[in-house]
Amino acid sequence: MKMQLYTRKNIDFILHDVLEVEELCKNDYFKNHSKETFDLVLDMADEVSKKTSLPAFVDSDRNQPALTDGHVKVHSGLHAFTKAYADAGMIASTFDESFGGQQLPKTIYAATEYVGMSAHNSFMMFTDLANGCSNLIATFGNQEQKELYVPKLLSAEWLSSMCLTEPQAGSSLSEITTKASPQTNGTFKISGQKVFISAGDHDITPNIVHLVLARIEGAPAGVKGISLFIVPKNRVEDLSQSNDVTSIGIFHKMGQKATPAMHLAFGANDNCVGYLLGKANQGLTQMFKMMNGARLGVGMTGIACASAAYHHSLKYAKERIQGKRLDLNQKAASVTIVEHPDVRRMLLRQKAIVEGGLAFMLQCYFYIDQIRVNPVKKSYYDTLLELLTPVAKTFGAEMGIVSVNQGLQVLGGYGYTEDFP
Amino acid sequence: MKMQLYTRKNIDFILHDVLEVEELCKNDYFKNHSKETFDLVLDMADEVSKKTSLPAFVDSDRNQPALTDGHVKVHSGLHAFTKAYADAGMIASTFDESFGGQQLPKTIYAATEYVGMSAHNSFMMFTDLANGCSNLIATFGNQEQKELYVPKLLSAEWLSSMCLTEPQAGSSLSEITTKASPQTNGTFKISGQKVFISAGDHDITPNIVHLVLARIEGAPAGVKGISLFIVPKNRVEDLSQSNDVTSIGIFHKMGQKATPAMHLAFGANDNCVGYLLGKANQGLTQMFKMMNGARLGVGMTGIACASAAYHHSLKYAKERIQGKRLDLNQKAASVTIVEHPDVRRMLLRQKAIVEGGLAFMLQCYFYIDQIRVNPVKKSYYDTLLELLTPVAKTFGAEMGIVSVNQGLQVLGGYGYTEDFP
Repeated sequence: MKMQLYTRKNIDFILHDVLEVEELCKNDYFKNHSKETFDLVLDMADEVSKKTSLPAFVDSDRNQPALTDGHVKVHSGLHAFTKAYADAGMIASTFDESFGGQQLPKTIYAATEYVGMSAHNSFMMFTDLANGCSNLIATFGNQEQKELYVPKLLSAEWLSSMCLTEPQAGSSLSEITTKASPQTNGTFKISGQKVFISAGDHDITPNIVHLVLARIEGAPAGVKGISLFIVPKNRVEDLSQSNDVTSIGIFHKMGQKATPAMHLAFGANDNCVGYLLGKANQGLTQMFKMMNGARLGVGMTGIACASAAYHHSLKYAKERIQGKRLDLNQKAASVTIVEHPDVRRMLLRQKAIVEGGLAFMLQCYFYIDQIRVNPVKKSYYDTLLELLTPVAKTFGAEMGIVSVNQGLQVLGGYGYTEDFP
Repeated sequence: MKMQLYTRKNIDFILHDVLEVEELCKNDYFKNHSKETFDLVLDMADEVSKKTSLPAFVDSDRNQPALTDGHVKVHSGLHAFTKAYADAGMIASTFDESFGGQQLPKTIYAATEYVGMSAHNSFMMFTDLANGCSNLIATFGNQEQKELYVPKLLSAEWLSSMCLTEPQAGSSLSEITTKASPQTNGTFKISGQKVFISAGDHDITPNIVHLVLARIEGAPAGVKGISLFIVPKNRVEDLSQSNDVTSIGIFHKMGQKATPAMHLAFGANDNCVGYLLGKANQGLTQMFKMMNGARLGVGMTGIACASAAYHHSLKYAKERIQGKRLDLNQKAASVTIVEHPDVRRMLLRQKAIVEGGLAFMLQCYFYIDQIRVNPVKKSYYDTLLELLTPVAKTFGAEMGIVSVNQGLQVLGGYGYTEDFP
């Protein structure tokens, strides 16, 4: 499957003709960038995807990771992808130069996300989590935490997960019960269970940095008593020692199948050490810094899926010969189905979703960049993003389904099989 | 999974309070029926489903039939189901008493379809095809064909398939190329390939009766040159002799997974005998008699899926405890999610789809019964059905997706896994 599942011209149009994103480079923070560097990172995202994740898509979608004897083995293509993506500097791209980052505008980062996710949104979960968790540690961590974790995550030497949901609490985070007991040395003992932890276990890296929401003993009830902890899978001082984080179950999702969704137990043997990240009882507020990025990421995933579906169905419609043109003699030869008005209608609906959806998503990321270059208008853009973030998440996700559904219709009976594309 | 995925009270309300279906029994054809006999067949459909198809649902959905060495093995529960369903007289129920049928109104038959499909729509494909193909043979067949095939199909001693779609033609039936060459003994040699043939091969019965659209050599181009043939898998005079119908591929559909969707080759060794059913070049018109029933069946399948999803999500919502009631003290105990307004909204949407959709579907079948009891208004009801059949097909199918989607949302993260329900 050596095809391209997005249109570069469309990205360039939104970035340069609509948003005039190069204007950002007048700001000191972005001063080392230009259209040329933006082009380079987009080329890089394309190259890594085409070399590693796109060729692995079908195989990794058909063969989901399994939990065997407490260990999870993921697709070999995922090992290659995370390494290549990190080596290309893509995980670190938006970080400060002091962390080895490129200080890339979020708008451009988001465009590379679109490129990578259109090829394989499930693989991108791993690198996105590394980026998001690093960002949390870089923002709220102490000096020691920043130095220990951030470089390792940005280089994908280790990877990470975010652990919010619990079996009894679902999305009601106020009801989580995972416990953190203070120890005399300033660390905490963590105990509890988390479910649906994407990338919560795998065999790619020798350690996994879990960011875990838990309650410090005696904390207030509800959301005001939740703190955020760094909980490594293995002890950071000696990776051969387990930190008592065990994989006790794996969920089989109906999509994004290459990413294991784990059921994790922390401290089943009362031996799980956690490190407070940021301030006690501020866990949810801190986590939502990352969650807002993740919510935009969900919308972008939807648009990337819409894009993959559109490019697949467009290709099929241009190749598949069936039926006569309505406006020609019915004894004429059959034509490719792209010539039929109803097929064109479906393809155009997909195209509108992809182009409009991408423009909307990039606009949101552009507002984040505006906060940096235009700090006097921070509260204006913050308010705008507060309004638009849930809209972008839902619009992208729901429209992704619509586009995939239309693409399925374009492929006819073949569309309803697991055998295409 | 010993639960019921439909509400009998709802069926009874539509049949008796809305449609007053017992009025049909005043007609001579239905005179042996009454509310009591209607109740009996509905009870029977329920009993067979609960004993055979419902318990096999999860396992048969997870383990799709495979094509091995040219043979297809289907789930063992499907063997038990087709036998039990036929033994209960359900396949034959709408047939004339001369065929051993019960002359059951189509409206009641449709209600039993709903009961059976809510338990397992994929298993029901086999018995529905036996009913539909028997109906075609009973209507257009000669005496010999009626005597040979109809009793065997109604008793599920043999089963059947309908073979329309070809690889190059898709849904453009005017472009089909399967060939029928007249032989001196009045039979035809059939050669060509068909795809997406539901129940096109299996190990349930010693023979499979394929109804195949093909062109007699020299027939006019387009739809006016298509004839319908009976093509048994094995020779009817000696079942140990193959009739040169070979399974050359199997598609893996994303739903209805217990039903194999076959790629069949007819006459690969120039040794496939077909028997003309009805008149030459009238194949499509004849087939559409069955297709109209099948189109209503698609709508009913959608509503049955909507019903299964609704009853599953309702059960989950009544058991799952999460979150506080909005109108109570937030320190009160958490409640079952059915108490949350947004969950109720989703459940009510599902309920409206199920009840409204079922009423609409049964209304269509009721019009078919009206043609029999009210023959002077035949053209009125025919026209009404011509209008409503495609609407019912699409409405049921599309609304089925909406209900399943809402049900998935009610189940939260669990809904997006293959592990629930």
